[in-house]
Amino acid sequence: MNLNRYDVVVIGSGPGGFTAAVRAAQIGAKVAIVEKSFVGGTCLNCGCISTKFLWQSLKTKQKIQKSYEYGFKATLEPVVFEDIVSRKNKNIVNIRKGMEIILSSYNISVLNGSASFKDKNTLIVLNNEKNEESEIYGDKIIIASGTKPSIVKDFIFDGNKIISSTDALNLREIPKNMLIIGGGVIGIEMATIFAGFSCQITLAECADSLLPNENSEISEEIRKNLSRQGVEVITACTNALDNISKYEKVLIVTGRTPNSTLGLNNLEINTIGKGFIETNEFCQTNIDNVYAVGDIAGKNLLACSAQNEGAAAAENAVKGNIVAVSNLVVPQVVFAIPQSSSVKVSDFSKYKNIIFGKFPFTANGRAFIENERAGFVKCAVDKLTEKPLAFWIIGAHSDEIVNTASQILKSGIKHISRETMFHPSLSESLLNAYEDAFGKCTEIAAKK
Amino acid sequence: MNLNRYDVVVIGSGPGGFTAAVRAAQIGAKVAIVEKSFVGGTCLNCGCISTKFLWQSLKTKQKIQKSYEYGFKATLEPVVFEDIVSRKNKNIVNIRKGMEIILSSYNISVLNGSASFKDKNTLIVLNNEKNEESEIYGDKIIIASGTKPSIVKDFIFDGNKIISSTDALNLREIPKNMLIIGGGVIGIEMATIFAGFSCQITLAECADSLLPNENSEISEEIRKNLSRQGVEVITACTNALDNISKYEKVLIVTGRTPNSTLGLNNLEINTIGKGFIETNEFCQTNIDNVYAVGDIAGKNLLACSAQNEGAAAAENAVKGNIVAVSNLVVPQVVFAIPQSSSVKVSDFSKYKNIIFGKFPFTANGRAFIENERAGFVKCAVDKLTEKPLAFWIIGAHSDEIVNTASQILKSGIKHISRETMFHPSLSESLLNAYEDAFGKCTEIAAKK
Repeated sequence: MNLNRYDVVVIGSGPGGFTAAVRAAQIGAKVAIVEKSFVGGTCLNCGCISTKFLWQSLKTKQKIQKSYEYGFKATLEPVVFEDIVSRKNKNIVNIRKGMEIILSSYNISVLNGSASFKDKNTLIVLNNEKNEESEIYGDKIIIASGTKPSIVKDFIFDGNKIISSTDALNLREIPKNMLIIGGGVIGIEMATIFAGFSCQITLAECADSLLPNENSEISEEIRKNLSRQGVEVITACTNALDNISKYEKVLIVTGRTPNSTLGLNNLEINTIGKGFIETNEFCQTNIDNVYAVGDIAGKNLLACSAQNEGAAAAENAVKGNIVAVSNLVVPQVVFAIPQSSSVKVSDFSKYKNIIFGKFPFTANGRAFIENERAGFVKCAVDKLTEKPLAFWIIGAHSDEIVNTASQILKSGIKHISRETMFHPSLSESLLNAYEDAFGKCTEIAAKK
Repeated sequence: MNLNRYDVVVIGSGPGGFTAAVRAAQIGAKVAIVEKSFVGGTCLNCGCISTKFLWQSLKTKQKIQKSYEYGFKATLEPVVFEDIVSRKNKNIVNIRKGMEIILSSYNISVLNGSASFKDKNTLIVLNNEKNEESEIYGDKIIIASGTKPSIVKDFIFDGNKIISSTDALNLREIPKNMLIIGGGVIGIEMATIFAGFSCQITLAECADSLLPNENSEISEEIRKNLSRQGVEVITACTNALDNISKYEKVLIVTGRTPNSTLGLNNLEINTIGKGFIETNEFCQTNIDNVYAVGDIAGKNLLACSAQNEGAAAAENAVKGNIVAVSNLVVPQVVFAIPQSSSVKVSDFSKYKNIIFGKFPFTANGRAFIENERAGFVKCAVDKLTEKPLAFWIIGAHSDEIVNTASQILKSGIKHISRETMFHPSLSESLLNAYEDAFGKCTEIAAKK
């Protein structure tokens, strides 16, 4: 049974699991991954990467429709949605092949099947397709099993009328209309994409605003943009599912539920909430050889955090607990049109004396050049120390620009240097918004 | 004559002068600008902003031509170059109007004409159009008169066959062929734009490589990309001007010459090189009430440095010398296709034990999504401290991504935090290249 013994066994191959497995191999461990579906996990196959392929096709379609703004004319042939989905699927297969090549280059074994703990070092791997069961031993085990779409009441996903985000990403044609339940990130992204491809969308959110935890000016701007794009947005909506007969599709995106059917009871592992696995700053569970990273650890359900935890858990599992994960400054992006991005210092809520600056992209030269003048940057600044505390960016390429904001906040500097921002760039607007907080932005008119 | 007395008079309204004038007004000064041409200076009217409008039209054209890559078909009607130039000109007028509104909101007077020092506080302003001469008094004077295209030997710009970058930006049609003399930033950008619109380009550079001061791997990559785009690149070329008869146009872009015809002799102001004005760290010349910023000070001919110096000079002129300008970390971008961007720590040359990491955009998920997979990130790291020292980024949106790299270098941190990089973004590749320097990049296969 020597073949089935590993230094590190990772459950799941999404951003957290993949990073953990590769890093563990890089520092000398013999590693296996147990994956019950496709390499790449939710992020690649039915999450952020998949969604962005559809979003990007929509964005490019809109660019072509506005080609006259750049000085020429182009005619778009009628869009066949199936071609756009095929493009996504073809690319996902290619990305997945790339990931498999990386795993193979590090001699990481990939076992296909569902993992279940027999004891703290032994996993039973059930391969349903082949109807085979095997056992695998891991000196250390890293759980990166992720999450799946939550269901609401007794509305079971039937893949036909009641659909999940996974189903939505693989529709072959655009429905006439669709009710989307849930005005979080996924609901907004789905509404943007499907409305952009001419589906009549109703987006229902039970809270008083979309993205209820977001700055109200931002969620209001997103709502306005969705409305302009033809989406009917209903907030404070508690009875959305009472009359679904008039909708061709009902997409439920109210949250994510941990994939915790892993025989965890055999371990007496500590969980929190809906079944998320409790971990310390080293990504370690209460069972000392078992770590958990990414969505299943429930800290924040973002791929970059999962990767960060994955790399740290690998180092800790192989070398002893040497890397504490802070996740202090984590950028977030909603792929609406335009994109809405934000990042805050981790102790943002502790600051009491905050001033705000704002800068519209209509005043940015690069935005003129690219004909992407919608949106703005908003900056929160500590009045006492003049330290920037948060940035919200609604606008084209804000998914890249937010990374500049992240570095500014992470560095803890108290002043943004103008020389560090290329001119003309959209990113300059971070500086402009920051300076506006002090009435010192040179790129907008004086306020009377 | 009370009307013609100001606390601060600024010569020129490009990025340096405009920023200086607005900032001086913001902190309470009565300010005038003397502008001999259009508000916005070279940058807006015949420099970086103008060039980028043409570049962006080309980029959008190429996107449309590749629309099948996004899942649909579009047909582009034949491009009329004049329409693209008109689009640029229309937008420049709009940006300029915006700048004029800002100046007016701060009650900044704009005097049209050429400035010449009568004494250290008095400028003679000659308006050639109206054939009028007037005098203006400035307690402090900030020179931001910029540069103009250099000429080579006795080849005078005739606006017809022998043209400058300013002429090239306003051609009404694409020439059959064009010889470009000078393989610096401007030459490369012009070659990219005109070749992209089907002009047969020969690009001649007297040094052994394009961008002779740039990292050789980068200049070689730019050369390869230009060649793929049909540009004939000739380096180590000393006789390019010997036979120009076969070219419809000859574009000379060998450098910039300071606009120093300002009666500087009356001041005995210290100059360096071709006539650049010498300044200290406060942007002050040897004449204590006279400051100089931007291109005319010749430190580096980049708009973001000019803006940084402009803001500092204004504070120093009004409040006494309180802001020292460092320009330690200044990003640079060449708008080739794809864009080539770089940024270094200021004391880069002092590091002797440097290791390099590299990450190709073919391995980045966001690059797949946007179908922008050309290029790479290269990172230089101090082996001893693991501190990142420089980034070179060839790829789509590198003009924004480089700002993230700037913040990393400016902060002086010794480790890039994975959690600060949104996934999926192109900017993540900075982290991947950095980790590759230690053999710890998780997104590329193990090196055998």
